[in-house]
Amino acid sequence: MRSIHKAAMKKRRRNICLFVSYDGTAYHGFQRQNNCLAVQNVLEEALTKVCGDNIELAAAGRTDAGVHAKGQVVNFFTDGKIPFLNLPRAVNRFLPHDIVATSACEVERDFSALHSAKSKLYIYKVYENKIPDPFLRRFVWSYEYDLSLAPMQRALSYLVGKHDFSSFKSAGSVEGINPVRTLYDASCTKEGDIYTFRFFGDGFLYHMVRNIVGTVVKAGNGRLNPDLMPEILAKRDRNFAGKMAPPQGLTLWRVYY
Amino acid sequence: MRSIHKAAMKKRRRNICLFVSYDGTAYHGFQRQNNCLAVQNVLEEALTKVCGDNIELAAAGRTDAGVHAKGQVVNFFTDGKIPFLNLPRAVNRFLPHDIVATSACEVERDFSALHSAKSKLYIYKVYENKIPDPFLRRFVWSYEYDLSLAPMQRALSYLVGKHDFSSFKSAGSVEGINPVRTLYDASCTKEGDIYTFRFFGDGFLYHMVRNIVGTVVKAGNGRLNPDLMPEILAKRDRNFAGKMAPPQGLTLWRVYY
Repeated sequence: MRSIHKAAMKKRRRNICLFVSYDGTAYHGFQRQNNCLAVQNVLEEALTKVCGDNIELAAAGRTDAGVHAKGQVVNFFTDGKIPFLNLPRAVNRFLPHDIVATSACEVERDFSALHSAKSKLYIYKVYENKIPDPFLRRFVWSYEYDLSLAPMQRALSYLVGKHDFSSFKSAGSVEGINPVRTLYDASCTKEGDIYTFRFFGDGFLYHMVRNIVGTVVKAGNGRLNPDLMPEILAKRDRNFAGKMAPPQGLTLWRVYY
Repeated sequence: MRSIHKAAMKKRRRNICLFVSYDGTAYHGFQRQNNCLAVQNVLEEALTKVCGDNIELAAAGRTDAGVHAKGQVVNFFTDGKIPFLNLPRAVNRFLPHDIVATSACEVERDFSALHSAKSKLYIYKVYENKIPDPFLRRFVWSYEYDLSLAPMQRALSYLVGKHDFSSFKSAGSVEGINPVRTLYDASCTKEGDIYTFRFFGDGFLYHMVRNIVGTVVKAGNGRLNPDLMPEILAKRDRNFAGKMAPPQGLTLWRVYY
């Protein structure tokens, strides 16, 4: 694993913020890994070629294996001289088709894509049909049983606001992390056979969105009374919520600073 | 290559018509091939498992490598007893996620998905943006230069009707094939950054849609006077038309009988 001395990196002159969009199907998540392909590996390699110095970046959201991003934000320090307006097209030449740099800007030294983030919007899509759609399959959870919108909307309504979301936090979370988060929006709309879930909040625990969707879909399928959501929240225990929804329906839509 | 004696196959009791949808990105086209993976290989193998006899099928359209289908139609003869209503879900269990059987019916013995087809609808999508979109890239031609809708619509208008389309036929076509085809519709609409081309006609020559799109996009980019289309048609020579558009923008949308 590459590791650049933090102090050496901080001596570099420019702090660049880059917006990135990717189809996560082929990757073992965003975060750099040793023995499998992560989005970060590919991005850092391409940026290193374009900037001329060894790039190590920080990202707003560490999306899991198979999860997508429309508006991932990263930042990195460099002495490279490329004008930031030219950076996206330059780096896209070294990126595979499923990862695209969409825009860039130069930011103040103390900006961190990870730590400066104020809130994030995640979108999760469920496709309700007995027959899956080969054109959607990479980007939706194909659900072959019946769903109703109203109980899902009702279940979601209990999640809006400031809560302890321990019941929706997967094992593997960082120990001792504060499980209290605020959701400004947790809603669902339907268009055709597609249910679109929106989660807008100040932060998300490990697997939180997918665990919420798995639980809410259970309500939509009639196997869970949506009015039990406050009780599930109050238990602060993962065992009381539903199964985790699969990764491919989830997209990190936008990060707000 | 498998080859079932035609006469033996015709003795089978049932003629089944199956509707199939696929993302063609991973395949070397529809038609069965020896040393690479075609949609037909995969479909026949899955159908053979479900039906219990060696399936050989005929398809309405032999889509090229990388071309998709939303409404491909195939038919095959079988003695298998599975009710046709159960067939799609049964065969989908043996199909990869990018090929899906959407419905099936039992048809008369003389029905042929290929020869009974009266007309076909092809859709071609172009995404006009300097930055490609990783979520669309499998299904559009990413075009980074400027396009105008009006000259493309004008160029297309000359193609509607009965014409000799030799200028839009790639080498590699079957020799001596009649190059006269009728297009009932050849049009283009725009929504956001996406241009959607519709081609509805009684038949299509080898690469005809992609050669037309390549030529029309040249008009949209200001490098071809759209009023030259009648002249290009009249030349009956492939060298006078534009370059062929890439496969991933093309989808066989529907076949009419």
